[in-house]
Amino acid sequence: MNIAVLGYGTVGSGVVEVFFKNRENLQKKAGQDLDLKYILDVREFPDSPYADRFTKDFQQIVEDDSVKVVAEVIGGLEPAYTFTKTCLEHGKSVVTSNKELVAQKGAELLAIARENHVNYLFEASVGGGIPIIRPLHMCLAANRIDEIAGILNGTTNFILTKMIRENMSFQDALALAQKLGYAERDPSADVEGKDACRKICILASLSFGEHVFPKDVYTEGITEITLEDVAYAASCDCVIKLIGRAKRGQDGEKIMAMVSPAFIHHESQLGTVDDVFNGILVRGDATGDVVFYGKGAGKLPTASAVVGDIIECAKASDTSPSLRWNPSQGGNVADHLENSTRMYVRLQSDTVKLPQMLEKQFGQVQPLSRDGQPDNEFACILPERKEREIEEELSKLTNMGVEILGKVRVLDY
Amino acid sequence: MNIAVLGYGTVGSGVVEVFFKNRENLQKKAGQDLDLKYILDVREFPDSPYADRFTKDFQQIVEDDSVKVVAEVIGGLEPAYTFTKTCLEHGKSVVTSNKELVAQKGAELLAIARENHVNYLFEASVGGGIPIIRPLHMCLAANRIDEIAGILNGTTNFILTKMIRENMSFQDALALAQKLGYAERDPSADVEGKDACRKICILASLSFGEHVFPKDVYTEGITEITLEDVAYAASCDCVIKLIGRAKRGQDGEKIMAMVSPAFIHHESQLGTVDDVFNGILVRGDATGDVVFYGKGAGKLPTASAVVGDIIECAKASDTSPSLRWNPSQGGNVADHLENSTRMYVRLQSDTVKLPQMLEKQFGQVQPLSRDGQPDNEFACILPERKEREIEEELSKLTNMGVEILGKVRVLDY
Repeated sequence: MNIAVLGYGTVGSGVVEVFFKNRENLQKKAGQDLDLKYILDVREFPDSPYADRFTKDFQQIVEDDSVKVVAEVIGGLEPAYTFTKTCLEHGKSVVTSNKELVAQKGAELLAIARENHVNYLFEASVGGGIPIIRPLHMCLAANRIDEIAGILNGTTNFILTKMIRENMSFQDALALAQKLGYAERDPSADVEGKDACRKICILASLSFGEHVFPKDVYTEGITEITLEDVAYAASCDCVIKLIGRAKRGQDGEKIMAMVSPAFIHHESQLGTVDDVFNGILVRGDATGDVVFYGKGAGKLPTASAVVGDIIECAKASDTSPSLRWNPSQGGNVADHLENSTRMYVRLQSDTVKLPQMLEKQFGQVQPLSRDGQPDNEFACILPERKEREIEEELSKLTNMGVEILGKVRVLDY
Repeated sequence: MNIAVLGYGTVGSGVVEVFFKNRENLQKKAGQDLDLKYILDVREFPDSPYADRFTKDFQQIVEDDSVKVVAEVIGGLEPAYTFTKTCLEHGKSVVTSNKELVAQKGAELLAIARENHVNYLFEASVGGGIPIIRPLHMCLAANRIDEIAGILNGTTNFILTKMIRENMSFQDALALAQKLGYAERDPSADVEGKDACRKICILASLSFGEHVFPKDVYTEGITEITLEDVAYAASCDCVIKLIGRAKRGQDGEKIMAMVSPAFIHHESQLGTVDDVFNGILVRGDATGDVVFYGKGAGKLPTASAVVGDIIECAKASDTSPSLRWNPSQGGNVADHLENSTRMYVRLQSDTVKLPQMLEKQFGQVQPLSRDGQPDNEFACILPERKEREIEEELSKLTNMGVEILGKVRVLDY
């Protein structure tokens, strides 16, 4: 059985490396001989030991019937979408790490795979080397998944860890992440939560059975998080993490899905996920909470997930009946203002008596403190309210001249 | 496709419950109609809603060709072994939660399954509802697994958690576990580490490709752990956990495998696994560390894993080529005395100057302290040495009249 790899970037070169390193073992697991016949890239790699396998001609791969599995590791929507669709239509299974494409076109591409009796697998699109997609749709077959929450982006988790553990500012931590190659020069997809959003959309689509689009999911990044917020979190045994989460809608209600920073307990299973690691909590009706932890990104972890999917395709005789979800027109996610939450707020005013005012608005609040807290600053955790109500009450404070310096959801994970 | 359940105990009744509760969804995932035709038990259940499905006649199940998958949830070696073998030989796949049988006869039963083109699956035998067996052999197909370590027994973890968090004695914590139904009246399989030993044997066999027998794995339980040891552990930011672990032998060397209590850092991924939860760390050459966490026991989590395997069997057209390991004669595990480790020791003497003596024997040691530490007690962490050497040096101390009150390995997980 022949394999083609589309794209020889970080993940693509990792896939080639892992394949040839473990080839013998992989063949045993697949139960057949495997070769990696083509590597598609627009660039030249004359010094590569695999130089004779490179091609710039996608059609050559499509038309070669010996190629049964294609690894799309180009990333982005195009040409990845067209290439994937074409391969599936030509009876080739496709495996990918491309979360943007799966989050946008997953339902459609899975349907095309089914029509052509092949597979579209994307274990590497969420959680890098952590097995999560397959456990979700197979091992947890006997569960109804009600909720998923995870630290889904290693870059932001690295930055937050530096802020928490070393009191480094957001800017300095970001600069360090860029220097170490964890963050891109334009870090917005990471720090603004877009990457985490794509991943929670994939997990929600798979778990709840209908496509959830990134545009419908309220997404807040970590750019507003300060060291003062981190200190207040520590004072109540919490850490701030960027959490992507989704909850099944009960009784025909819409899905709750959101990406935002959150206070979570520092000793919980997600609270101890540090540095570039990811952690994903899955709440099933029979299993209870199951957590998966590991390196969420990086060349070899991601490549190993892609290669695992290649083996899976090699073994499959038809499309997996369980890896699927229904298409949707979007609009199936509830307005985040309808969500009830506890909320940490940090406020500043020289005139308003903040503790008294907040108690009047919200009832009992949990005051927090930090070293060096100025007299005119007050921070607390508000009791659980709908986000709309919190916004309304806080805007009354703003009208009184109160400055809102920080605002972070408090979650129970 | 028809299913039979052998044994209507805790897990068996859970399997029946999960099956009928999620039947529609399961049929969708399996891509076919499913029925649970027989429940084998020697007892009568006239009031059960499934009364008409009970049988006491195993032969009836064997001879019914419409039964394609059998769930063996009897436990123990016999009659489970004979029943399993007979079903496989009659072309029926078998799924099980029976760790004792898999740890003892896994290689043989997997081979019989292969000969008969059916499957023998045992996701529920390790980690209850945590998906671990399938991720190990499939998602991690592209990795060489070098090491596994886990908190594999919920009962002992519950007892240790009560000792650590509530300063409860071992005896009181055990009594509470029994009262809550977490521990059996005869708790020896749990507290002496035998249950964890069976599980690490299954994980090691699968990861390293040859059968590892429980009798070859040095196993130490938690019955000797005291609150003083717990306090010393806390003083160096550690907790005591019962850890089962196995490491691939390098260059033809034997496997290292052991079950013992250990100091591990209290904020590590395994250190934060509390109460009846399990956590399993898998170290792959490409993925790095991946950790799986969840409820390691209990009726519904375990049943959901069994039902997940039933679906897997329903979908499979032949034996999975990747779930297998080679038979062995045993003797493939290294003597634990050859293992190098750091070791916590707690010693007592009225005559020997312990700190000076230990420094003379071991070089620099890390002294620990606790509230209420008597003058004649000294505790420390010894630098890494072979266990044989540690034993030899400690026996010299014993000969000088020093009393060894505690001894726990210190691990880096």
